[in-house]
Amino acid sequence: MNEVLDLAGIFVFAISGALLGVRKRLDVVGMAVIASMTALGGGILRDLILNLRPAAFESVGYVLVPLVATAIVFFWHPHVERLMPAVLVFDAAGLGLFCAVGTEKALIVGLSPLHATLLGVTTAVGGGILRDILAGEIPSLLYDRQLYAVPALLGAVTMASLYQNGLHGWPTTLAAAVLAFTLRILAMRYGLRAPLARGVTEPE
Amino acid sequence: MNEVLDLAGIFVFAISGALLGVRKRLDVVGMAVIASMTALGGGILRDLILNLRPAAFESVGYVLVPLVATAIVFFWHPHVERLMPAVLVFDAAGLGLFCAVGTEKALIVGLSPLHATLLGVTTAVGGGILRDILAGEIPSLLYDRQLYAVPALLGAVTMASLYQNGLHGWPTTLAAAVLAFTLRILAMRYGLRAPLARGVTEPE
Amino acid sequence: MNEVLDLAGIFVFAISGALLGVRKRLDVVGMAVIASMTALGGGILRDLILNLRPAAFESVGYVLVPLVATAIVFFWHPHVERLMPAVLVFDAAGLGLFCAVGTEKALIVGLSPLHATLLGVTTAVGGGILRDILAGEIPSLLYDRQLYAVPALLGAVTMASLYQNGLHGWPTTLAAAVLAFTLRILAMRYGLRAPLARGVTEPE
Repeated sequence: MNEVLDLAGIFVFAISGALLGVRKRLDVVGMAVIASMTALGGGILRDLILNLRPAAFESVGYVLVPLVATAIVFFWHPHVERLMPAVLVFDAAGLGLFCAVGTEKALIVGLSPLHATLLGVTTAVGGGILRDILAGEIPSLLYDRQLYAVPALLGAVTMASLYQNGLHGWPTTLAAAVLAFTLRILAMRYGLRAPLARGVTEPE
Repeated sequence: MNEVLDLAGIFVFAISGALLGVRKRLDVVGMAVIASMTALGGGILRDLILNLRPAAFESVGYVLVPLVATAIVFFWHPHVERLMPAVLVFDAAGLGLFCAVGTEKALIVGLSPLHATLLGVTTAVGGGILRDILAGEIPSLLYDRQLYAVPALLGAVTMASLYQNGLHGWPTTLAAAVLAFTLRILAMRYGLRAPLARGVTEPE
Repeated sequence: MNEVLDLAGIFVFAISGALLGVRKRLDVVGMAVIASMTALGGGILRDLILNLRPAAFESVGYVLVPLVATAIVFFWHPHVERLMPAVLVFDAAGLGLFCAVGTEKALIVGLSPLHATLLGVTTAVGGGILRDILAGEIPSLLYDRQLYAVPALLGAVTMASLYQNGLHGWPTTLAAAVLAFTLRILAMRYGLRAPLARGVTEPE
């Protein structure tokens, strides 16, 4: 169950990476690299910090799913772009799932709830940061203002709290993921925004 | 004692990251991310290379201090900017401390003096490099010419030499840190500069 | 033998990094940093993922060779630039060797052939990606279209296949390296190019 959701998250993150690759007019190799880093980068960072061998280098699905996503975007990207609103919903699902799964994995390895929460957020947003750095852009997370890291943070906090109170297993993980997903969807729907420092004007 | 100095170094590096965030008009989430990476990135790189779990994921202070620094800059950044000369002095203190502490940690884990020195310099300058990459700029270390890595290198060499000669403990660490700090202050005061390759003209 | 070839690969990658540093008008410190990251970055990523201490922090040659390359470019870069066609041949040799050695190291540690291949390619192209990110450019691998990752991929696949069929040792490694090298040279000679996504026009 977790495995299926995990691969679904990897798939939608890879689609978002490959689409950025098309917009930047990268060749097919560049598309595959940026799709893979977007989908796997957050989990690789998480596992490196936990001192584990990254899951991406142990599982076959983790390697193949980003390549399938790249092929789909390569051949049918105008259709995929038309589905972008749907892709954003999937991206929110991936965000929710990755923050919950990342927090849980860190708690199992023995990190404190505070640090597990931090690592869960890193898992959820790390791939997108790497994607933007590879594409030569400032990570959209840093300036986009539409809430993205905050839903992941609240999902991770929820996961850590439930786990600390003895609630383990996939229903718990799914509950935290759904919470983060819902918050992210609400942030997009109602344009909830992170504030700028006092006195700083809108970038034009 | 070392703990206090370490957190002081993290604090001033986080201030420098958050101020760059304001200048780039990042939102509060972006400010927190860039402040944390500036303050913790060098130490995380060091611990990953040493195959240890990063200290930033074991200590509470490491997580909270960058957030406090972000809050201060968020509310009072015009005042902080006015204190920039003081911030540069603190940054020099952080540079000195991180190169000494990083070298020492590497020696304790069993690296050779040469490699411990290299890792000490990485600890001292790594966070600033990550800060500039996140902000979409070429790392200032690479072209700024005002000596920054060289004081860290000399501090790390001193630390490794003293340690090899049986001098351990915080007075040794502090001595190496003070040396690097002093050299950095002198480099700023007298405009000591790294040379460009033969025949290369000044960037305008 | 492997050691000598490995250091040769590090040397030519460091030369390519230092030359980019000159073109970007970096100072000598920046040149040394970018040369070292170009030469050692791929191997450091490989070893971090394998959960080993990076070879760059255990061997003296790994630290010194990039500094020698930096010194050569610092003093004689106009001559080195004139040798660029030769440098590209050496870079192809480094690419071949790193993909073969990286794949082999991953197989010895126990990764599956699929993941070992992936890690071999990462070893071969990782340093160049870090070099371009440090220089503030989109990694040339992503958009250059001239085949670079593909020869490394075919070399890594060959290495993994031979190894799985019981062929170990340096002649096997060298054969895989020579194959990737030859493909890379052919790609340069005949302008073999990776395709853009359907309907995407040439960047001007």
